[in-house]
Amino acid sequence: MLHVVFVLTLFLALPAVAVDTKTPPAKEPPPLPSPAPLAVKDVAPGSAVRGEVQIKQQRPVYSNPFGTLYDDEVLFPGNISGTYLRFSWNKPNLIGVLPVLSSGEVVLIEHYRHPLRRWIWEIPRGMGDDNDLEALARQELKEEVGVHDCTLSKMGVITPDSGILTYEVKLFLATGCQRGKVERERDTGTVRNVRYISFKNFEAMIQSGEITDSFSIVAMHRARPRLLRR
Amino acid sequence: MLHVVFVLTLFLALPAVAVDTKTPPAKEPPPLPSPAPLAVKDVAPGSAVRGEVQIKQQRPVYSNPFGTLYDDEVLFPGNISGTYLRFSWNKPNLIGVLPVLSSGEVVLIEHYRHPLRRWIWEIPRGMGDDNDLEALARQELKEEVGVHDCTLSKMGVITPDSGILTYEVKLFLATGCQRGKVERERDTGTVRNVRYISFKNFEAMIQSGEITDSFSIVAMHRARPRLLRR
Repeated sequence: MLHVVFVLTLFLALPAVAVDTKTPPAKEPPPLPSPAPLAVKDVAPGSAVRGEVQIKQQRPVYSNPFGTLYDDEVLFPGNISGTYLRFSWNKPNLIGVLPVLSSGEVVLIEHYRHPLRRWIWEIPRGMGDDNDLEALARQELKEEVGVHDCTLSKMGVITPDSGILTYEVKLFLATGCQRGKVERERDTGTVRNVRYISFKNFEAMIQSGEITDSFSIVAMHRARPRLLRR
Repeated sequence: MLHVVFVLTLFLALPAVAVDTKTPPAKEPPPLPSPAPLAVKDVAPGSAVRGEVQIKQQRPVYSNPFGTLYDDEVLFPGNISGTYLRFSWNKPNLIGVLPVLSSGEVVLIEHYRHPLRRWIWEIPRGMGDDNDLEALARQELKEEVGVHDCTLSKMGVITPDSGILTYEVKLFLATGCQRGKVERERDTGTVRNVRYISFKNFEAMIQSGEITDSFSIVAMHRARPRLLRR
C-alpha cells in the first residue's frame, strides 16, 4: 500500500521551485500549464443551528494523485465563522486486516513509515478503488505477508483520527491462513520483517507499548472475543 | 481542543478567492502581502540503503496556524524516487484521556467531527504547547466533561494513522474523578452530549461498532487490565 509518485506531480498551488539547470533558458519561457481544478467531493453541509460544523465553502488547498487537504470555510454554533482542516485519501476504500494462521499465530509486519520517520509493527493494510474489500484484503495479505487461503470476517470500522481524517477504515479478521512466499511490494520495499507470534504475545506487545499502531490495536481488541472463544 | 481560525488566515499558495463586494475597487490594487515562509521542522532524513524512506527534500505545501501538510521528495530502497505526503499539527503535544468516576462509570462525549461530517462518541482529547501533559489532560477533562480531582496514570502512546500522520498521541487514564459542571468549549460548542456508562457497556459500544474512535478504543484496551483488576 503506497502513495508514491514516480514523476514529480502537480505542483498545484505551489510556487515554482523546480529549476532545470542543464538547459539554457528560452528567451520567452513557455506558458505554465493551467493547474487542474482540485476535486471536491460532495459532503453533507451540516447545520450550525443543530450544533454541527456547517460548511460554507469547501476549499481544497493541496492535492496530488493520492490525497487532498481541505481548509474549509465553516460556521460554528453561535454563528461563529472560522476555517477547519480535513485530509482525505483519493481512493475511497481503506482496509486493515489481522491475519491469523491455522496454527493460531498472528502475523505482523515491520514497516518503515515516512510520516513517523521510524519502523513500526503493524497489521497489513490497503487502499483501493474497487468496492470488493475482501479481494483487497486478500491481495494485501498475499503481497505483504505472503499468506493465503484465509477465511475473512468483518470487524466493523475505525475512524483513526476524527480531528483531521475524513475516512473510516474497514477491519477484517483473517483466520485459518496458510503461510506462503512473501511477495514484497516491488515499488517501495519498506517492509523489513514479518513476525509470527501467539495471540497472547500480540496482546503483550500492545500492553507494553511496543505496538502503537491504532489499526492493529483496534483489530486485536475486536478479534479478542472471537479468538479466545475457540 | 480546536483548530479554528476566527479571521480568515494565510491564503498561502492559494488563488485569491476573497472578494470584498462592499468597497469599490481602488484603481491600483494594493500589493499582496508576501506569503510567510512555511515552517519546516527537522526530522531524521533516513537512509534508503537501510531500507528506509529517505527524505531528499522536505516540502511543506500548505500550512495554516494549526497544521502543515508536506509532500516530500523522497528516495525509496532500490534508488526509486518519489513523493510522499505527511500531515503534522503545529502544536507538539497531543493527549487522549479516559475519565472514570469514583463510582466506576466511564465518561464519554458526543462530538461533531468536521472531517467525518457526523457525531461520534469519544473520550476527551487535547493539544497544547506546554510540555506538562498532565495539566493539559486535567484542563480537557474540566472543559469537556466537567470532571475534576482525578488520579492520572500514563497508558503509553498511539500512532493514529502511520500512513499520513506524523504524531504520537499520549494516553492517560483518569480514575477516581468527581463530577462537576461542564464548562463547554465556548468557541466551538460542538459537543452535544456527555454520557456516564459502566466499563462493561463501554466495551459493548466498542464491540458493536457504536464507538469507532481509535483513541477511545486503544485507551479502553490499555485500561482494561487495570480496571478489571480492582
